[in-house]
Amino acid sequence: MSRLLESYAAGRWYAASAEGHPLLDAGTGEEVARISSAGLDLGAMAHHARTVGGPAIRELTFHERALLLKELATHLTGLKEEFYELSLATGATRRDSAIDIDGGFGTVFSYSSKGRRELPNDTVVCDGDLEQLGRTGVFLGQHVYTSRPGVAVQVNAFNFPVWGMLEKLAPAFIAGLPSIVKPASQTAYLTELVVRRIVESGILPEGSLQLLSGSAGDLLDHLTVQDSVAFTGSAHTAGILRQHPSVLHGGVQLQVEADSLNCSVLGPDVAAGDPEWDLFVKGVVTEMTAKAGQKCTAIRRVIVPAAVADEVTDAIAARLSSTVVGLPGDESTRMGPLASLGQRDEVRKAVEALRSSCDVVVDEVAVDGSERGAFMTPVLLRARAGAVEPHDVEPFGPVSTVMSYDDLDEAVTLAARGRGSLAGSVVTHDPAAARTLVLGLAPWHGRILVLDRDDAPESTGHGSPLPMLVHGGPGRAGGGEELGGVRGVLHHMQRSAIQASPDMLTAITGRWTRGSSRTITPEHPFRHSLATLCVGDTIASASRVISLEDIDHFADFTGDTFYAHTDPEAAAANPLFGGIVAHGYLIVSMAAGLFVDPAPGPVLANFGVDHLRFLTPVKAGDSIRVTLTVKQITPRSSADYGEVRWDALVVNGDDEPVATYDVLTLVAKEA
Amino acid sequence: MSRLLESYAAGRWYAASAEGHPLLDAGTGEEVARISSAGLDLGAMAHHARTVGGPAIRELTFHERALLLKELATHLTGLKEEFYELSLATGATRRDSAIDIDGGFGTVFSYSSKGRRELPNDTVVCDGDLEQLGRTGVFLGQHVYTSRPGVAVQVNAFNFPVWGMLEKLAPAFIAGLPSIVKPASQTAYLTELVVRRIVESGILPEGSLQLLSGSAGDLLDHLTVQDSVAFTGSAHTAGILRQHPSVLHGGVQLQVEADSLNCSVLGPDVAAGDPEWDLFVKGVVTEMTAKAGQKCTAIRRVIVPAAVADEVTDAIAARLSSTVVGLPGDESTRMGPLASLGQRDEVRKAVEALRSSCDVVVDEVAVDGSERGAFMTPVLLRARAGAVEPHDVEPFGPVSTVMSYDDLDEAVTLAARGRGSLAGSVVTHDPAAARTLVLGLAPWHGRILVLDRDDAPESTGHGSPLPMLVHGGPGRAGGGEELGGVRGVLHHMQRSAIQASPDMLTAITGRWTRGSSRTITPEHPFRHSLATLCVGDTIASASRVISLEDIDHFADFTGDTFYAHTDPEAAAANPLFGGIVAHGYLIVSMAAGLFVDPAPGPVLANFGVDHLRFLTPVKAGDSIRVTLTVKQITPRSSADYGEVRWDALVVNGDDEPVATYDVLTLVAKEA
Repeated sequence: MSRLLESYAAGRWYAASAEGHPLLDAGTGEEVARISSAGLDLGAMAHHARTVGGPAIRELTFHERALLLKELATHLTGLKEEFYELSLATGATRRDSAIDIDGGFGTVFSYSSKGRRELPNDTVVCDGDLEQLGRTGVFLGQHVYTSRPGVAVQVNAFNFPVWGMLEKLAPAFIAGLPSIVKPASQTAYLTELVVRRIVESGILPEGSLQLLSGSAGDLLDHLTVQDSVAFTGSAHTAGILRQHPSVLHGGVQLQVEADSLNCSVLGPDVAAGDPEWDLFVKGVVTEMTAKAGQKCTAIRRVIVPAAVADEVTDAIAARLSSTVVGLPGDESTRMGPLASLGQRDEVRKAVEALRSSCDVVVDEVAVDGSERGAFMTPVLLRARAGAVEPHDVEPFGPVSTVMSYDDLDEAVTLAARGRGSLAGSVVTHDPAAARTLVLGLAPWHGRILVLDRDDAPESTGHGSPLPMLVHGGPGRAGGGEELGGVRGVLHHMQRSAIQASPDMLTAITGRWTRGSSRTITPEHPFRHSLATLCVGDTIASASRVISLEDIDHFADFTGDTFYAHTDPEAAAANPLFGGIVAHGYLIVSMAAGLFVDPAPGPVLANFGVDHLRFLTPVKAGDSIRVTLTVKQITPRSSADYGEVRWDALVVNGDDEPVATYDVLTLVAKEA
Repeated sequence: MSRLLESYAAGRWYAASAEGHPLLDAGTGEEVARISSAGLDLGAMAHHARTVGGPAIRELTFHERALLLKELATHLTGLKEEFYELSLATGATRRDSAIDIDGGFGTVFSYSSKGRRELPNDTVVCDGDLEQLGRTGVFLGQHVYTSRPGVAVQVNAFNFPVWGMLEKLAPAFIAGLPSIVKPASQTAYLTELVVRRIVESGILPEGSLQLLSGSAGDLLDHLTVQDSVAFTGSAHTAGILRQHPSVLHGGVQLQVEADSLNCSVLGPDVAAGDPEWDLFVKGVVTEMTAKAGQKCTAIRRVIVPAAVADEVTDAIAARLSSTVVGLPGDESTRMGPLASLGQRDEVRKAVEALRSSCDVVVDEVAVDGSERGAFMTPVLLRARAGAVEPHDVEPFGPVSTVMSYDDLDEAVTLAARGRGSLAGSVVTHDPAAARTLVLGLAPWHGRILVLDRDDAPESTGHGSPLPMLVHGGPGRAGGGEELGGVRGVLHHMQRSAIQASPDMLTAITGRWTRGSSRTITPEHPFRHSLATLCVGDTIASASRVISLEDIDHFADFTGDTFYAHTDPEAAAANPLFGGIVAHGYLIVSMAAGLFVDPAPGPVLANFGVDHLRFLTPVKAGDSIRVTLTVKQITPRSSADYGEVRWDALVVNGDDEPVATYDVLTLVAKEA
């Protein structure tokens, strides 16, 4: 008898109290492992996540969490041959496994990098601009995201046992949430192996990851307001989850990615011989055969101009004919088996349903070993006029249906009949057609690839979700959204509007808020390293008169002789200035002269400026002075310096604001 | 018999085929109107919205839609006395009506202003930064928001018949969606009057607003993937809506704001005599009595330090004693009746339930006219130790329960026992306590007010949602989010990731994308008004050497003598520069000198700079040149000029990027 998969629950590996359900090799039919969650205390898992994992993660800043992910992905990458080996049993070829295994690790690396580049080195995220809620500025609004003190339950599909886990785990972890991963049984042995290696590594804090091997049992009954369930799988199961009392009445957030009837549209401009023609045909065949078509983003509907429909269909059929189906480990194999005999039965049933309104162009042919292995050769269909089934029936395997359109409106209408998809593609080299198709398709899609000769060299293809882009889709696709870089992190957090005085907002967000107290330090703040610099530390400069000579000279020196700075009559006629004004760049340059402390010290460089706005023109003879205040301090986890964002306010002699901006500097951690 | 309210459906006013259900004046019990939707074709309403209203709105840009809203709010403001008059029948005092009526119009004004300031003058919104997906930059990702071709159904609560409609209508309209408004029957006569005035005005395109007076019947059966339902009301009804097949399986998006057990927490630092003490007591009493406590954001739970619990309770009770309950039109009245006798029954039932674990501090007393008018005096309770009901039972009226805490952790735990609320408040003058309480409460709240002596002069109070801040809350509060300025608009749109070449992204988004083609125009682009300026128009400047004398001189002239520009030895020791470098401000000043066209013309001013980043240091002897390209054009709807955002790229002699930024200018619409 094969090995019983274990669950990792509440800090220990747990073997079920039952013999378990056998899991068979997709190609050979041999038993790989058995699975059961009998006797597992699911309530204790949720409790462990909330009381041990969550608090441990939330003690770390976003950057610290991100660094752990990098360490983890590096560690797993070193072990990947072991995962590739076991992945063969799932029916995945080496190329299929790369999508799952390397794709999964790549997603973790991407989150590590995004987390450190785009989130503060803190535990709270400010969202959007400050809102002034009253006239004088004593009452402000700031939206913030905070971590939920709950658990993220992740119910994954069988087709990507590694990527499926990691693409949900990484954003949840950065968001501060512990995860309970429940892989689909069919391929859970691979997920279990990866989790085992993660746990052994000791890289993630205990409780941040638990594994539920087997049935989810009553897990949802143990979830409450701050918990969430992210589900990838069938629309049918999604419907059942939506009706669970914890979701209906208990405030549990449910996020669904369901299979969808994704389409690829060929533009009306493309003819045989064009680079886009081949890209289109190749794209369709790749999506039909990669993972044996078992991808929720695969192309199910091939939408082409009526004039070339026959020709395109023939080209796809011709290319499909070279698809060698066999054991994933065989060198000659282009496409492995489906995940199981049961899955193949489902796909064949779907093809039967499609036949009622489609003609078969390429039919399934017999493959050796098909009694024990879930082999199935690709099937290409052609929809008859008015066909309904291709927009409704999803064959989760190497099956696609060609349908034709007369004009772009009809192409959009056909695409929309899928009732919401994860991914669409438009293959065209005509920008106008691309605009019409993409904007028509966009409300129905989470992601759209526009493929042409220009981006083809780097294109990752129709079916690949990328960690920096959102993954999900409306309607039939589940209505969910995952990934998308930081977007995927924020989905796990609660957005709240905080209304308070400036000082209180500074205290709450840890970021200096305009209007709150400033600290004039005895030493110039440029003398302070990150070790001693504080939010609110301020330089209040002396003032300086800007003379007409200064303006003249600056114009001569820089070559910026724009009439508003040089021609009194023309400047007087300008509706905004009414006379000669100083250059904006002159003002910020002089302001730097006023606030800078020149001697070498912890301030290493000014690497940028954000949100510079010129508010009141400065005329010859006006004086300016500047107030520079530490707004935000972001130590870099992997360098001996960090970023300091300063609030700069330049005012004139009447204390009217002349310019506001953020000055960005790099400052050493230690003096 | 009173008048039968009508529905505005598919372009005409419709009177039901039934006698209708009587709606009674809250104070006098007299019949105000009758209501029925019998015979109304709800499928035709949905169809009308999708085929007439939606397309008409989406022909307009965001700015054009926003301007119509301004016109509408201005028009309605002129009619408001009529609305105030009718509002008396709902039980609302003049002050209550202001929240509903002026608050509603204010929300429309706010959306008009936000829509024009924060959205492009276009129909597509770009979300976030461009993502480079490959090594060379030919394959990019950009997230966009597009309008759903569906209908927004809005099911409102009885307590705010005007604001409730407008706070949902305004964001949906800006998003490009037609609305079907279904007011709660009890106060639908006021909504009907306002809709009548809106329709008469002819300001909104036909089909953008329809009114369903009476039961929603089978409306949800007619909704599909691109449609949404926004519901404000009880958690019970929300649970029923969540189980509708259109929501479970049909892809209809459901957004819920349910009543919640909002809390106000008094900080441990506050003692009798402090300004915060009075603010707290006043706040609680205001929230109990405004709209007779019938606000989904009202304070139901009063959480105070144990040491002062008796004293606070007494102070609230004392202040409550001055609450004169009576007809809303009477001058002496401080608090009007509840909306109906049925509502009062519900509240009294809730008070009965609360009594099981609470002591009554202020009990209900008899009021004249209570047989026909739904009068109810305020009730203050004090929770006994371990009380469960105050966290579970919502009295939707003038009822609050005081409970006490020993430390901040316990205060947060008590707040969280409400299982998710719309609004919380923290009254303290201690920044550390504010930070602990706010960050503890935030995952449980959509909005938190921090009230102290500093923001009190402008504070809008615990219970007031503001259009620029999100309104909604997790868990029991429904898990929804509305308002929040542009956030509320984007909730109505679909976010999609577009993957394409730079040129295709430019065509699709209408915004120039870095890496796409540039047009070197025969004339300098500064010679072009908005009438002829195009996205992609480019100035490719000559190059200029930056000499050591330039750097020296700039340091002298501006006073920016930072050592990296002036001290060769110290600059050589800088880890980032390794020698004297030009000032960043020198580079952008010289760049302006290179790209500017000095003569008077359509370019009126440079009003700002965004995202300036210095990428490669410029050393003495290096040359720089700049490429300036029109990135985005935003004509201002209410001025004879608009904003032009230019992409600026400064490179050195080796074509390495030295600086990138956006230059913001104002340009005349006509030459």
